[in-house]
Amino acid sequence: MSRWRPDARQRLQQAALDLFAEQGFAETTVPAIAARAGLTTRTFFRHFADKREVLFADDAEASVLVAQLMAGAPAAAEPLTIIREGLRALAENRFEGRKAALRHRRELVRSDAGLQERDLRKRAALAEAIRDGFLARGLGAARAALLAETSVTLVYVSVAEWLDSDDDRKLDDIVGEMLAALRAEFG
Amino acid sequence: MSRWRPDARQRLQQAALDLFAEQGFAETTVPAIAARAGLTTRTFFRHFADKREVLFADDAEASVLVAQLMAGAPAAAEPLTIIREGLRALAENRFEGRKAALRHRRELVRSDAGLQERDLRKRAALAEAIRDGFLARGLGAARAALLAETSVTLVYVSVAEWLDSDDDRKLDDIVGEMLAALRAEFG
Repeated sequence: MSRWRPDARQRLQQAALDLFAEQGFAETTVPAIAARAGLTTRTFFRHFADKREVLFADDAEASVLVAQLMAGAPAAAEPLTIIREGLRALAENRFEGRKAALRHRRELVRSDAGLQERDLRKRAALAEAIRDGFLARGLGAARAALLAETSVTLVYVSVAEWLDSDDDRKLDDIVGEMLAALRAEFG
Repeated sequence: MSRWRPDARQRLQQAALDLFAEQGFAETTVPAIAARAGLTTRTFFRHFADKREVLFADDAEASVLVAQLMAGAPAAAEPLTIIREGLRALAENRFEGRKAALRHRRELVRSDAGLQERDLRKRAALAEAIRDGFLARGLGAARAALLAETSVTLVYVSVAEWLDSDDDRKLDDIVGEMLAALRAEFG
């Protein structure tokens, strides 16, 4: 009966992260992840292409979230306003309250060349989603690319600072600091 | 006698690019590249780890160039000045005058998932070289990362615009335009 429970995806993610932590990423198999979640291997593959993908599911969802936010922004909104609001939503929906899990995920990604590569690809895909959003809003190619790449830089640099720090600054406050730093350096 | 000529590296690069253009990247073998250059396969492997690496040799050299430039900049130089001078040197030494070859290289990279991945890794390595340069100059981790990622964004967005355009703007002029655009958006 458990295989039909609607939270299969989250259970698989949690089981995978637990096993990666307990026995290492390389040693963890898909059947072991499915068994820990009380689900079948087949169910696993309905949700994820492979065990690596478990670690990047949130990134794929981030690209979708970004595309929705950009399409829903008022026609007259300035790019910087869209970026600021988008980063706020991303911080609140995808990051805040998950610092320990995301620190652990970062360790895992750093430990494996294949995971690092996939991380770079997901980063490029996020930049592409933002660029496409600006193109769809009528911006020129170079401007859309510049805004998209800079947005992704703000996300990555802010998340790194947030994961590195032990104070209780919120991620969105750090994004604000980084935006101010960007202004101070290049403005 | 030809195998001892000092320009083996450049000859191998040219032979590889010619063959990639004539018969495609996937169809071109290392022995064929070496033969076209009048050199042995062994000589090829003294210069490049594999045929992919031929396309990224310049990127690796760019990271070295960047590290040298940053180490050689005056102690009192502002980060933005170092970035501006570094981008100028990079544009002049690695890009200007090679638009046709670089356009062709871009097509090749776009055509192959493995090449795209390596391109992302080289981009990350360039950001890391710049970040390390700023860390060595005593900047904090977040500031060094923000400056490095933004520098790489400026390089990539400017090169894309330069390769896309058929006018005779110099790459360094486009870098200046992008820097002004960054100021206008975020300043």
